[in-house]
Amino acid sequence: MSFARLIPALFILALLPPPGEPGQDRGLVGFRETQARGQRQLEARFDTFLRASNLEAWMKRLSARPQHLGSPYRKENAEFILAQFKAWGYDARIETFEIYYPTPKVRRLEMTEPVPYAAILTEPPLKGDPVTEMKSESLPSFNAYSPDGEVTAELVYVNQGIPRDYEELARRGISVRGKIVIARYGGCYRGVKPKVAAQHGAIGCLIYSDPLDGGYGQGDVTPEGAYRDGFGVERGSVLDITVAPGDPLTPGTGATKEAKRLAVRDAKVLAPIPTLPIGYNDALPLLKELKGRVAPESWRGALPITYHLGPGPCKVHLKLEFDWKLVPAYDVVAFLKGRERADEWIIRGNHADGWVAGASDPLSGLVSMMEEARAVGELVKTGWRPDRTLVYCAWDAEEPGIIGSTEWVEEHAAELKEKAAVYINTDSNGRGFLSAGGSASLERLVNQAAGDVRDPQTGVSVVERAAARSLTRGGAAGLGPQEFHLSALGSGSDFSPFYQHLGISSLNLSFGGEGRGGVGHSIYDTFAYFTRFIDPGFQYGVALAKTSGRIVLRLAEADIVPFEFTAFSAAMKRYVKEVTELAGQMRADTERENRLIDQGAFKVAADPLEKLRLPEKKEPVPGLDFSALEKALAKIDDAALRYGRAIGAFPRSGRSMTTETKKDLDRILYQAERALTREEGLARRPWFKHYIDAPGYYTGYSVKTIPGVREALEDRNWAEAQRQIPIAADVLSRFAAEIDKAAAAFEGRVK
Amino acid sequence: MSFARLIPALFILALLPPPGEPGQDRGLVGFRETQARGQRQLEARFDTFLRASNLEAWMKRLSARPQHLGSPYRKENAEFILAQFKAWGYDARIETFEIYYPTPKVRRLEMTEPVPYAAILTEPPLKGDPVTEMKSESLPSFNAYSPDGEVTAELVYVNQGIPRDYEELARRGISVRGKIVIARYGGCYRGVKPKVAAQHGAIGCLIYSDPLDGGYGQGDVTPEGAYRDGFGVERGSVLDITVAPGDPLTPGTGATKEAKRLAVRDAKVLAPIPTLPIGYNDALPLLKELKGRVAPESWRGALPITYHLGPGPCKVHLKLEFDWKLVPAYDVVAFLKGRERADEWIIRGNHADGWVAGASDPLSGLVSMMEEARAVGELVKTGWRPDRTLVYCAWDAEEPGIIGSTEWVEEHAAELKEKAAVYINTDSNGRGFLSAGGSASLERLVNQAAGDVRDPQTGVSVVERAAARSLTRGGAAGLGPQEFHLSALGSGSDFSPFYQHLGISSLNLSFGGEGRGGVGHSIYDTFAYFTRFIDPGFQYGVALAKTSGRIVLRLAEADIVPFEFTAFSAAMKRYVKEVTELAGQMRADTERENRLIDQGAFKVAADPLEKLRLPEKKEPVPGLDFSALEKALAKIDDAALRYGRAIGAFPRSGRSMTTETKKDLDRILYQAERALTREEGLARRPWFKHYIDAPGYYTGYSVKTIPGVREALEDRNWAEAQRQIPIAADVLSRFAAEIDKAAAAFEGRVK
Repeated sequence: MSFARLIPALFILALLPPPGEPGQDRGLVGFRETQARGQRQLEARFDTFLRASNLEAWMKRLSARPQHLGSPYRKENAEFILAQFKAWGYDARIETFEIYYPTPKVRRLEMTEPVPYAAILTEPPLKGDPVTEMKSESLPSFNAYSPDGEVTAELVYVNQGIPRDYEELARRGISVRGKIVIARYGGCYRGVKPKVAAQHGAIGCLIYSDPLDGGYGQGDVTPEGAYRDGFGVERGSVLDITVAPGDPLTPGTGATKEAKRLAVRDAKVLAPIPTLPIGYNDALPLLKELKGRVAPESWRGALPITYHLGPGPCKVHLKLEFDWKLVPAYDVVAFLKGRERADEWIIRGNHADGWVAGASDPLSGLVSMMEEARAVGELVKTGWRPDRTLVYCAWDAEEPGIIGSTEWVEEHAAELKEKAAVYINTDSNGRGFLSAGGSASLERLVNQAAGDVRDPQTGVSVVERAAARSLTRGGAAGLGPQEFHLSALGSGSDFSPFYQHLGISSLNLSFGGEGRGGVGHSIYDTFAYFTRFIDPGFQYGVALAKTSGRIVLRLAEADIVPFEFTAFSAAMKRYVKEVTELAGQMRADTERENRLIDQGAFKVAADPLEKLRLPEKKEPVPGLDFSALEKALAKIDDAALRYGRAIGAFPRSGRSMTTETKKDLDRILYQAERALTREEGLARRPWFKHYIDAPGYYTGYSVKTIPGVREALEDRNWAEAQRQIPIAADVLSRFAAEIDKAAAAFEGRVK
Repeated sequence: MSFARLIPALFILALLPPPGEPGQDRGLVGFRETQARGQRQLEARFDTFLRASNLEAWMKRLSARPQHLGSPYRKENAEFILAQFKAWGYDARIETFEIYYPTPKVRRLEMTEPVPYAAILTEPPLKGDPVTEMKSESLPSFNAYSPDGEVTAELVYVNQGIPRDYEELARRGISVRGKIVIARYGGCYRGVKPKVAAQHGAIGCLIYSDPLDGGYGQGDVTPEGAYRDGFGVERGSVLDITVAPGDPLTPGTGATKEAKRLAVRDAKVLAPIPTLPIGYNDALPLLKELKGRVAPESWRGALPITYHLGPGPCKVHLKLEFDWKLVPAYDVVAFLKGRERADEWIIRGNHADGWVAGASDPLSGLVSMMEEARAVGELVKTGWRPDRTLVYCAWDAEEPGIIGSTEWVEEHAAELKEKAAVYINTDSNGRGFLSAGGSASLERLVNQAAGDVRDPQTGVSVVERAAARSLTRGGAAGLGPQEFHLSALGSGSDFSPFYQHLGISSLNLSFGGEGRGGVGHSIYDTFAYFTRFIDPGFQYGVALAKTSGRIVLRLAEADIVPFEFTAFSAAMKRYVKEVTELAGQMRADTERENRLIDQGAFKVAADPLEKLRLPEKKEPVPGLDFSALEKALAKIDDAALRYGRAIGAFPRSGRSMTTETKKDLDRILYQAERALTREEGLARRPWFKHYIDAPGYYTGYSVKTIPGVREALEDRNWAEAQRQIPIAADVLSRFAAEIDKAAAAFEGRVK
């Protein structure tokens, strides 16, 4: 082929938007066809501003010293971040809240019997990684919101310390009443462990990192490798974020200086018993001296011992004292006011506080968000301005219990309910695959936006890569190779107050799965560690900025807020199918087990020397009437299709709408998510108002979809489950009505 | 109730046979209805003779010194056993074979790089357990039939050393060519490990016991507990019993003094590369010094290290020299001649040789068989005599490769093909649940016989207890609570020559699953150990004698040999379904994987830093025509039903048969199993002639049903699989024809 003949082709290519994947829908949800090209050009310009070197410089700077809530460097960092946002053209400020917060004064753990052992409770510094040597500035290993206390008792090993672990103990006739439990990390949010232990009568709780779960059982440990060594400790909060995140003395209201505070004794989310995290070097001597029954197979970790349950003869003395006081949390909040729809807010956030330096957690996400915000600022300098208002937030006090974001959300609840269209969260980030969770009505937007972002290592879109990983691991077929579902949101990061307390459509985005190891919440989570193991070169930090940046820019610019409801409808069908099948499975299992009990099969099959308690007959699972939910699903489905048809016809109708009309429509659409909440909140935890997604009361991080129904089923509370079905159905029906309203408004326009 | 009124009831109860389970079929397969009560009375009398104290005394005596093949005490024990059988009225003799057998002269294992380490290779004695102190009499830890050799090379960790493990290594670009491999025990017969290693070019093989698989990862270790400690070593043969068990120089013929022997270089079953078993105390220093990639998750054991694959830097020097010579094996064979059908043999066997003392393996089974034989002898003293001939066998040289039994079977093959009706094997035994494997035509017999045996701990029948265990573990419904299927037989004990070489219907019986721990093939398998952990009081030794004794007595006395073919038909349907589904699953998996390869999904999903070799497209699985097997199944089904109707009508017909006619019928029935063999044997291993059950070529112990078809599928050799389908079908059709012949003979009688 001659050179001359190449020119026209090159010319055409140059004019095209950045390449999407073959076969991909080139239209953009929320945009008229004629606007899509312009939007993609804007995003291409946005990309050109992104610099990995900025991420690197900021992470280095922000992680140079320990920067936990209340530390001097935390304040310096907040001011640094504030200055950046101002420099990039944002109307930025620091909002300060006063948080009731404990820091350790006395931490003593020792084995008194059968052999004395004093726990080390100290992470040795690493040569050449100066932040690990800043002992005086950093908090030692502890669990925030453990009470003060001094207890001495025999130890019992409780596996992960979740309810079914205590069922196994009970089968073996083991009670933790009056004992200290030792649980390994994993299986739930760590704050669930002392909660459940106390429910069973335990008086103290140790939480250790078993080498199986993230130490030498997974890979080489620090300093040679990326995994946690025997000294490394996972600090962390044990505030009960499943009841309510945020400052424990000001639930539901912003913890401003003048806020009305609960008496400490009335706070409902403080851990009930003294709790301390330890590394496996400290756990091994204790676990080695436990006798009694051998732990069930799935309970055993990678320590070179036979795991026994106890109680004792290992006896432990635990003494904890904290300095409880109000400390300031500094949220940096930066506004970029929208052009025509300034009262519609697209909110973007990542926390800034770490447990020590916090390079991976949270700075890897924060510096990506900062670069995204800076690039948006660069666009503004070229004369562009978003149609809707952007709000960038660098939260403080996420680590102690999602506090900085929660206080801000509670403080501004009324305004947020009115104006907040979407909240987009990030947190830790690393090399690997895109993960995205959130409101299913944003699924199409995320697929389209991420479908336009190239994976740095392979060159395919980040959606295609994530889908390929799922498929090659035997994941569900039926998803196209370039589509993925958003996962449902539980808790564990700053989306929780936006999404579950106020019903603001939310997203949580990250890359990961290829960065090796993990030393989160220890002194070893440093810049040196991150750049060696997690995302060397910050390529995935940039990929995250491209992905979340695109989502922000599309949310900011779309003609109509880019929600899409057939994906929402499909998600609701999956959830309803799950709870229906859960009831059916429980019914079949109960019938089978009761029948076997009647036949004496468990008695006969039991090893008489093992003396396991035999299962007892359970109340049969009654027939539950799910028809209300089925009807609501039909309404959602109809509304989603109707809205799709309406908006599909609209761009081609040639008629335009006034800005006011668009705003009215936008408001119906983005406030529809509020219809999924109920003011009285969930049982046991009224702070959680979203009736489709909530963190499990006994999982903490992972989600329970349709939680009212699902958790009632899991509790075998059939009457409550039946009562919750029409309530969930009502919530879905109200949502459908909002979508219908939006569709009708469109139809009115295009007729 | 007055005393007087009780008397009649007691009288009736005294006349009743031992209680069966409610609802159980009280008829006995092979017996006329009128005979069943008499048979059960015989069995009740048999039970009264059984004494746990005999089992205890014999085990103590037989395990008092090391008694491996070729040892002085082995000969003494054979003579002791012989004397017992003679005293009990048996026509007993010792048959001696000359076995080519290596004993260790030099065993040296050391790490030369990166740090020197000399392996211990020694099990310390236990105080108070004298047999563990008899070093000079016992064989040290070694793998029998490893070649002599001296090799030095880098080490590679190969997990269990089965073919799919080498596929995983290849994905990671790791070759074992010129290396020494270290494999953990498990996943296959140990002899498969050096075989597969050598196929991949390895020059040496270490096999170690990971603590995960039977050491502290499972429970407390010796001497406090029942599990293997770091010094304990599993000795064992690496003779290729999947090609042919027995003396390696006399395949197919008895290894008598004058037998023609192969040149050693022509023996096909010797291990190809120097192989040595070690304990985890010796494995840990080596594995700790392996670097390179981290082992896949499922490969990791319970040692306190990150498991790496190597090769190296750990470099190992292994030197092995053996004393190769012919040693005598002493099979004790004891006949109790039958009354009218003396040419129909019911053969009962258990091996007597151990690796050291061999208390659990094999004496726990042997002493039970001895007590069974003694009780039968007591019945004879009361004037009773079996209708068919009983043959009790105490095999030598099972441990080195199922040699004693194989040589006897090969030596007497012609007579056995003619006369052997059934072989019933036992081996190790312990507290717990009945396991039974074997010819499905004996399934009804085993269910009935074991259904009349009470579990010592619970009082229900041992069948009901085994079924309850299966059901409470989520096992298949559909089995009644008092029925269980016989499992198919692979290899690993003395049934193999009877069943798979000659086509003699066989059973393998044991109790187990509740005895804790296991130190098999080490010096710690002693009387003290067994009576502490495995079956204190020998209750389950007695239960085994009751179970196998009943089966023997029913086989000896039945009017017609007690085969039943609807269970056989059902088993064949299961097997055919399995291979058909295997082909279907492989087809679907191949299609899916090829499609994902075409889409580039594996390439895109791979971590580029991991550099895993991507899967390559595989030849699609063609449609295979299983109709020949389906047709054969229909024939089996028809024949089984026809035979059932015929024999069902027979006892009620009132007509009797002459003994000669019964013998003719018996012969058709018990020789029917021969129809499942083919003279040319299986591909790669002509010694194995049974076409329904064989040990897997790459599993060794566990079975491959319909092995011609199944192993061809597993090898992705579609042409061979298709070729094997009509062959397997032909074998089944020939079996059906024999059953038809038997049914016709009955029909002739009853018309």
